[in-house]
This record gives sequence, structure tokens and C-alpha cells, in this order.
Amino acid sequence: MLSQVESIDIVVKNGWVLTMDPQDTLIERGAVAVSADRIVDVDTEDALTASYQAAQTIDARGGIIMPGLVNAHTHAAMTCFRGLADDLPLMTWLNDYIFPAEAKLTPDIVYQGTRLACSEMILSGTTTFCDMYLFEEAVARAAKEVGIRAVVGEVIYDFPSPNYGPVEEGLKYTEDLIQKWRDDSLITIAVEPHSPYVCSPELLQKARAIAERNGVPMVIHLAETEREVAEIRKKYGRTPVTHLADIGFLSSSLIADHCVVLSEEDMTLMTDYDVKVAHNPESNMKLASGIAPIPELLKRGVTVGIGTDGCASNNNLDMFQEMDSAAKLHKVHALDPTVMDARTVVRMATIDGARVLGLDDTTGSLEAGKKADIITIDITRPHLIPMYNVYSHLVYAVTGSDVVTAFVNGRVLMEQRAFTALDVDEVIASVNRIAHDIA
Amino acid sequence: MLSQVESIDIVVKNGWVLTMDPQDTLIERGAVAVSADRIVDVDTEDALTASYQAAQTIDARGGIIMPGLVNAHTHAAMTCFRGLADDLPLMTWLNDYIFPAEAKLTPDIVYQGTRLACSEMILSGTTTFCDMYLFEEAVARAAKEVGIRAVVGEVIYDFPSPNYGPVEEGLKYTEDLIQKWRDDSLITIAVEPHSPYVCSPELLQKARAIAERNGVPMVIHLAETEREVAEIRKKYGRTPVTHLADIGFLSSSLIADHCVVLSEEDMTLMTDYDVKVAHNPESNMKLASGIAPIPELLKRGVTVGIGTDGCASNNNLDMFQEMDSAAKLHKVHALDPTVMDARTVVRMATIDGARVLGLDDTTGSLEAGKKADIITIDITRPHLIPMYNVYSHLVYAVTGSDVVTAFVNGRVLMEQRAFTALDVDEVIASVNRIAHDIA
Repeated sequence: MLSQVESIDIVVKNGWVLTMDPQDTLIERGAVAVSADRIVDVDTEDALTASYQAAQTIDARGGIIMPGLVNAHTHAAMTCFRGLADDLPLMTWLNDYIFPAEAKLTPDIVYQGTRLACSEMILSGTTTFCDMYLFEEAVARAAKEVGIRAVVGEVIYDFPSPNYGPVEEGLKYTEDLIQKWRDDSLITIAVEPHSPYVCSPELLQKARAIAERNGVPMVIHLAETEREVAEIRKKYGRTPVTHLADIGFLSSSLIADHCVVLSEEDMTLMTDYDVKVAHNPESNMKLASGIAPIPELLKRGVTVGIGTDGCASNNNLDMFQEMDSAAKLHKVHALDPTVMDARTVVRMATIDGARVLGLDDTTGSLEAGKKADIITIDITRPHLIPMYNVYSHLVYAVTGSDVVTAFVNGRVLMEQRAFTALDVDEVIASVNRIAHDIA
Repeated sequence: MLSQVESIDIVVKNGWVLTMDPQDTLIERGAVAVSADRIVDVDTEDALTASYQAAQTIDARGGIIMPGLVNAHTHAAMTCFRGLADDLPLMTWLNDYIFPAEAKLTPDIVYQGTRLACSEMILSGTTTFCDMYLFEEAVARAAKEVGIRAVVGEVIYDFPSPNYGPVEEGLKYTEDLIQKWRDDSLITIAVEPHSPYVCSPELLQKARAIAERNGVPMVIHLAETEREVAEIRKKYGRTPVTHLADIGFLSSSLIADHCVVLSEEDMTLMTDYDVKVAHNPESNMKLASGIAPIPELLKRGVTVGIGTDGCASNNNLDMFQEMDSAAKLHKVHALDPTVMDARTVVRMATIDGARVLGLDDTTGSLEAGKKADIITIDITRPHLIPMYNVYSHLVYAVTGSDVVTAFVNGRVLMEQRAFTALDVDEVIASVNRIAHDIA
């Protein structure tokens, strides 16, 4: 009997395939078959090579083959301000450095800064990010050109924006973005009011109406600091979360960034409404915002992803380091080393992050039918010897620089740490020119 | 008038020279002149090239030229157990995994594990480490062969050791080590009783007598957990630090690892006795030990270095990541972003770390007369673009993999991330064989 051999575009083989499927299937000597933009099959290397004939082979050399990481909260273009001002009181940092620098933003600065962020993200294994900033049309364009997956949305608030001017124009700008990028293979537009402390209830309700009408997600900063909670209590007599519940803003397509300062009632509301959370441990640590009650949220069944936040408060976009910080921070905070085990943290940075963004049918795991967003990791380096447990390795030992290959949508963006199409030297030169002007 | 041009062995040039001298001198386009094992001069590149003729030039390509980092607390050979067991309760981790694995230790396992640790440390910019473990003769031998600087000492406790047997033999083993390695150019032997909870007052006093008689430092784990403090209180009616003060054990040549759980009185005693501290933020986080009051110790003038602890509780030896965690952890703990600023943290990982080990006349800064322990960092990678502040970059953005050159004692151990002499593939193969047996 003859077996049928199917022609495919790419096989990624010779590695530990970490699927992040619902069963957390791990295949010791596995392979992934890719055709066009999709994963066709995931199996042992023996089974796959018997079934498929691939035009191109990517050899993981005994390393790890896994889904590309999902960075659930970024301000990508803030790479331009990386290290501009650190170790300062929050208000000094914002008022004396970040806001003045942002007042001079242009679409070109945002475009170049985002291209640099995309380069850094691909080099460190991130294949999807969720962005909030100004001039987001430039972010969408940069991400699309580089070939990375992104949820992007223009930041909206009550006061005029350096981009669109008055707030009504911001809503219009957002709707234009939604129209322009509808059904794009990489870019999803979101409606992104900044936070309850700079957005009136009316603005938040208008934002929600646009999101509902267009079937797109919303992103908001929520309960990031004690200061914010105090301010909202003073203004509305309740916590930021209860305030949003009262005005009908909470929903399962709301992505809430930070969620550091939550009451029991807040957590109950977030669970009931199935609000999604983007946890940013390193930014919360560096800005001294506090420690988000992530273990409690997870216990209640809230879906939590991990984000780096902007480079100015991190100061990098390396999701592997972010995973490490997430695991360790909650252990020491709870004085319990079993909290936030490595497998949970890897899920947060992959499939759960995709779920947070509403992209879990698209990315976040290696399963037949999903888009081929794949990375491979070299585990032959001294700091990765020996390996007893793949999850533990990814969280506590691997860093972004150990990623060697990155695919998005079936396209190889990086191979052996070299970009296949992006002229990264030109990107670097552009941002260095921008930084020279800022300094 | 003719200027005299002096012949030297090596010039490291074309970089930001971060001296970490008492004035924190930073030279924008600087260079370092090296002859034999010593730094001859540190100045602008123009001044140095006018004064010296170098046999070899190392071009830092616009990057950072700085002192090699000092890892103030390691159990180097525990690389063999990297990721063997994580996310477990402390006693399960120790009793079910680490102690059984350590019971089977041999000098060869320690030797191979230490060689791997040295490889990892050199690749990530560490040029000096302070080790405590079993079979430390093998550690000294491995470090010496690799060419890295180390303070090493055999762990001593009341019960028999898999290495030397009864405790009296441990003291003898230590004295033999001291004799054998006296005046070595790289290795310093220390007297290393494990901790107050497994060392009787008599043992601690004998250890101190050996250290004093030989003029060598002492290393001890101290006040790592609440559990330890409770145990010592029960046994001796006082805190670990006051207990050590009572038995005459505290001194300026005592290196105390962890110091997580300290009372006001403990901190006063440590300040008065000028006890040195090795802070291990990532290990303390991962094992959920707690957060050491480092900002308070620094305020009192205590000298604090940074260490990674063993790989099994970290799970890497990257001091750049450790610096990042140190800065961020204390900010969020104090809810103050100005705490543990980047410059303070870089000092802790360089000159203050050297001071902790009693090696500040030897290493930890780039100053004429010191040994040439130097690293260079590539800052042309996307995650390091742009650079506004060198200290901030080192703490919040650089990782170990950005180190490209490492010197110890004037000898180039790594250039462009390749070892000049060490056969790292052979080291990796050896540890993989050991790990196979352990698993």
C-alpha cells in the first residue's frame, strides 16, 4: 500500500516541540509542518517526515520549537526614550521627561521607534504585541512592513492629542483605522481610551460603542497605582473597576493593563465580566507602582497575559526576562515558592496572552489550523546546560538572545538571529538620529 | 621635544570607559592600557595612543569598557542541577532533590560543573566570583585552569561531609587549601562555615581562629529566612546576627550571604562590625525567602555586593539580570522609584562587590595599578538603542549576552564571545553526561 505524501512549504524539525495546546503536549523529538500562513500538522519528526515533503527545512538543532510569545502591553515607539530618565519620582519622570518628549512626537518618530521595537521583539521571540500610543497608524504600518502580528489602537483622552487634536477627532481617527485595517492578516485595531483618570464616563461610553459596533477589543490602563485609585475614589466615590462597572464599560473584550491595586469586589467584578488582564511586572516594579494580585486573579479564573509596557519603564521588550520576573516577584510577595509555577507563566506569555487579545484562534499555540507564529530556541549555550525541564528553562534560564528563528504567519522573519528582510542597521541609524535630537 | 612612547601589551579602545573609580569617572571616548596582568593607564583614547605603543589592540567598537563584574555569592557546581526541581516548597526542594543529588557528588562533578559555571560567568561578564560548596579543591582548580578570579572555601558544618567526613577534617581541609593556594594570582581561600543553624558556636569559633591566623576572609549564610531566625531564637534566644556577635564571630572580613531577615539591632551590629553583605535578590525571590533590607543597609554605610547564588535557585549566573532584579525589587518593595538607582547597583556589582571580598585593591574598577579584569559590551544591538545613560543601560537593558570581550589578570579569556583557550563544547558534553546520570 502506498502512503500519500503531501507537499508543504516548511518543516521545522529536530527539537522539543512545546505546543501549548490544551493538554500542554510536549513532543521530545517533534516537528511542525507549515503551508502558506498556517500550521498544517504537529507531530513527532518521524511521523511528519513520513507524511510530508517540505520545500524548506528549518533545523532547530535539538532546541525548543514553540509558539512565538505574545507581549500583551506595549508602547512600542517608546524605544526612542529607552533610559532617557530612570530612578526618578513618577511625576518628575512624566512631567519633566516623558511628556515633553512626547509633545514633540511625529508620525516618523513613532514609525521608526516602532520598527526598532519590532526588531527587538522578533530578536527576543515575540511575534504578537498589543500597542497603545500616539500616531498608531504609523505603528500599524511599521508592524505590517516588518511582518509582525499586532493589536494597535490610538490612545484617547479628554484633552487634545498631539496627533488628532480634540477628542472627537480621536474617535474618528480610531474608526478610520478600523476601516482601513479591517480583515488584515496581521493588524487588529482596538479602541483604546487611556485610563479612567483621563477619560470621562461619556468618552468611555463612546469608545465602548465604537468597539461594539465594530466587533473590536478595547484596551485601557486600569488601577495601576494607589494614586489613581485615590483620584478615582475622590472623583466618583468608588474604585476604578467599580466605576467602570457602573458605567457599563466592563466586558470580555476589555483588555485591562496593570490592575495592580484591586479590592476583593474589583476582582469579583473582573471575574464576572471576564475582563482580560495584561500583567507588567517589570514596569510595575521599576515605577514602584506595586504588585498586582495575579495569583488571586488566576485562582478566580481570570485570563492573564504578560506585557513589558513601554521601554522607558522597563527598559527592554524581552518577554523571557519578563516571565522570569513575573514568576519570581509573586513567589517572594506571597512567601511561597509554589506560586506562579513555570508552566503557568509560559501559558501566560503564549496561549493565555493570545486569549487576552482575542487572538487565541489565530496564535499562541502550535496546533493544526492556527497561523504559523513559531520560534526556535538554541539550548546548546553554557547558561542553558543541562536541561531537565523545558518550562523551567524558558522562565528561569532562557533570555531573548537565545531565540534563533522567528516565523510570523508562515513567513520566516529571522533565521540564525539574522533578519531575512528587515534592514536593521537602517532602523538603528534612524532611531539614533531621533535620540540625538531628543537628548 | 620628543615625547616618550611606552611599549605595552594591550590597549582596549574605542568605547565609553566606565572606571568605577571613587569619582565614578566616565570617559566618552576612552581607552585602557594593559601590561602583563595590570592596568597601566586609563585615559581618553587620544591621550593613551599618544603615550603608548600596544602589541595588541582590542576595539570596543563604540561600546562600553568596564570592570569585570563580581559575583559575590555562588555555588558554582550547582550548574549541574539547573532546573532540576523548581516551584517547590523549600523543604521538598532540598530534601527530595538537592540533598540526594549532592550526596552523590564527586570531585569530578564539582570540577565539571564549576567549569561550566566559569564559562557562563565569563560569557556574561563576570570575572570574579565567591564560591561555597563541597570539594572546593576542584573549584579552585577549575577556576585557575579557566583563568577566572575566585574566592573559594569548603563548606563546613556539624555533621559529616561527603567530601572530608567529620568536621575536624573539614577544618584541616580548609587549612590545607589555604596553604596550597597562598599567594596565588587568581585564587583566594576563605573559611566557610555554612550557617549558624548547622554550625555550633564552637565550630564557628574554630573557623574564625583559622581565618584570623591565616589572614583570610570568612563566608557564611546568614538570616536567609524567617524559619532560620525562629530556629536560632529557639536554640540561642537571640537573632542569628546577635548570636554571632555574642560568640565573637562578626568582623570586617566576614562575608554574610543573604541577610534577608534583619532587626534594627542586627543592622546596627553589622554596621558597627563592618560586616560585608552579599545580596542575592533572584534566589531570595525564587525560593520565596523574602526581601533583604538592602536600602537600609546601604543608608547605614554597610558594603553590599550582589550575587546570583547557585544555579538551582536562580537559574542562571547572569549578573546583569541580577542587577536589574536588584534595582526593581527594592523600588517596588519601598514603593519608591528612586531607591537603588542604577549607579548604586552598578557599584554593588563591581567595586563594592570587590570590597565585600576584600579584593578592592585588586579588581572591581579600572584604575592604574589594579589587575586588568575588564569586559567590553556591544551596544549596537536593537535592545540597546538608543543610549542616554550608561549606568541605566547596564542595569535595565544590557544582559550577559551583550558582553563581547572578557579579560582576567590581563589575559583575554573571551573575544567576540569566543573563548580563547577553553574548549567549551567539551565542558558542555561533560555536564550533559553528569546530568543524564542525575536525571
